Amino acid sequence: MTVVFIGAGNLATHLASALQESGHQIIQIFSRTYESASRLGSKLNVPFTNNTSELLQDADIYIYAVSDSALADLAELSVAPEAIHIHTAGSVSMDVFSGKKTNCGVFYPLQTFSKLKDLHFKEIPVFIESSSEMVRDQLIRLARSVSDKVYEITSSQRLNLHIAAVFACNFVNCFYHIASDLVEKADLPFDVLKPLIFETADKIRLLSPGEAQTGPARRMDMDVIDKHLNLLDQDPELRRLYQEVSQMIFNKHV
Amino acid sequence: MTVVFIGAGNLATHLASALQESGHQIIQIFSRTYESASRLGSKLNVPFTNNTSELLQDADIYIYAVSDSALADLAELSVAPEAIHIHTAGSVSMDVFSGKKTNCGVFYPLQTFSKLKDLHFKEIPVFIESSSEMVRDQLIRLARSVSDKVYEITSSQRLNLHIAAVFACNFVNCFYHIASDLVEKADLPFDVLKPLIFETADKIRLLSPGEAQTGPARRMDMDVIDKHLNLLDQDPELRRLYQEVSQMIFNKHV
Repeated sequence: MTVVFIGAGNLATHLASALQESGHQIIQIFSRTYESASRLGSKLNVPFTNNTSELLQDADIYIYAVSDSALADLAELSVAPEAIHIHTAGSVSMDVFSGKKTNCGVFYPLQTFSKLKDLHFKEIPVFIESSSEMVRDQLIRLARSVSDKVYEITSSQRLNLHIAAVFACNFVNCFYHIASDLVEKADLPFDVLKPLIFETADKIRLLSPGEAQTGPARRMDMDVIDKHLNLLDQDPELRRLYQEVSQMIFNKHV
Repeated sequence: MTVVFIGAGNLATHLASALQESGHQIIQIFSRTYESASRLGSKLNVPFTNNTSELLQDADIYIYAVSDSALADLAELSVAPEAIHIHTAGSVSMDVFSGKKTNCGVFYPLQTFSKLKDLHFKEIPVFIESSSEMVRDQLIRLARSVSDKVYEITSSQRLNLHIAAVFACNFVNCFYHIASDLVEKADLPFDVLKPLIFETADKIRLLSPGEAQTGPARRMDMDVIDKHLNLLDQDPELRRLYQEVSQMIFNKHV
């Protein structure tokens, strides 16, 4: 398929590379800033622009990999009305295209993307949604060409999935950050926590999160919890968070 | 060294195996329940007992790997007053032995242990504390025989480290659990989250948690956050948690 990318951020970078490697032809990169359009265009050796009036009109598919707020505006563009238009956002309904594009859909890869870190796209689950059988068939083909795990879901399922991903990734990383601050306060390097962090993730290969749960809250060990809360007295926000997550663990294991 | 283990839980199981493999002689396992004493004794082919009056008096070192509440009682036992007595708890001061044992210390391996899952003990950081130079030398030798990463720290540093571990492991796993419940509600298998969970952990090999942070809270994307909070209206506890962790991410990145 011939593809135009609207957006040149982390997700666009990984997805465009994966599509190119699996034989699709990226014919243009658009980004609102010249720098990022040029960076991804050069990386993929593909023409690029930061001017919407220069968007090519003859691609098979237009992939909007931009922030949610930019998406609302860009979805309005009158570009290639017969082509397929899809976005990659977790929390935006497919309806963002309604009235403006006939053939539309969603292509949501569930992963955290950084420009600096390579990924095996084949292992990333991709969730698709489509406005018609025709779009569905094309999106399934496109998704299967880059990923071994393709699911069809609704906008509402996708929103739940996005919240799950916020907890499993963004909020988990925030807890790594909190832990990093605490070991630093104890004059120790963050590195001492890494074996624990990797093992905590690795455990869920074998065990469900319910089975894998350990720690003072799981054992209802109030002596330890009280010692920890005492030490956290100096930081009310962190103390409240400690209490609430401990309470959540109690509730999930009664 | 000859070692008696007081306790036969997850930590005792992993540590006793590692010590035995590196050439130390475990001469007895004690546990308050016959079943667990017998399980670990049989696994290591070592005598076991659930009767404190049968504890051997001639080991070089007694390792108390028991719950914090059991530790307070067991530390009082009059056993081998000349030997070294150490515990493995994150949040108990070395003082738990004071007045009862002359030579005492702490041997705290920072890891989450499950009976079902094997571990490379060599990679687990071990934090020691000791009542004298003599104990210190012995504990460093003991720790280095099983781990490549041995640190000397105080009881107060260890308490901070334990809280850090609660966030980086127990609370992270609770968020895996919350995420698992959310994808289940969307009729999807927990498996779809695994690549994201593994990548989130893997990222901190290359990036600090501050650099690795992504997501709507990091971008201050209020549109997405409001959509998520709306969906969580049915679950006030989870909604509050979402808000507080998002706030924590804001604060860490202003």
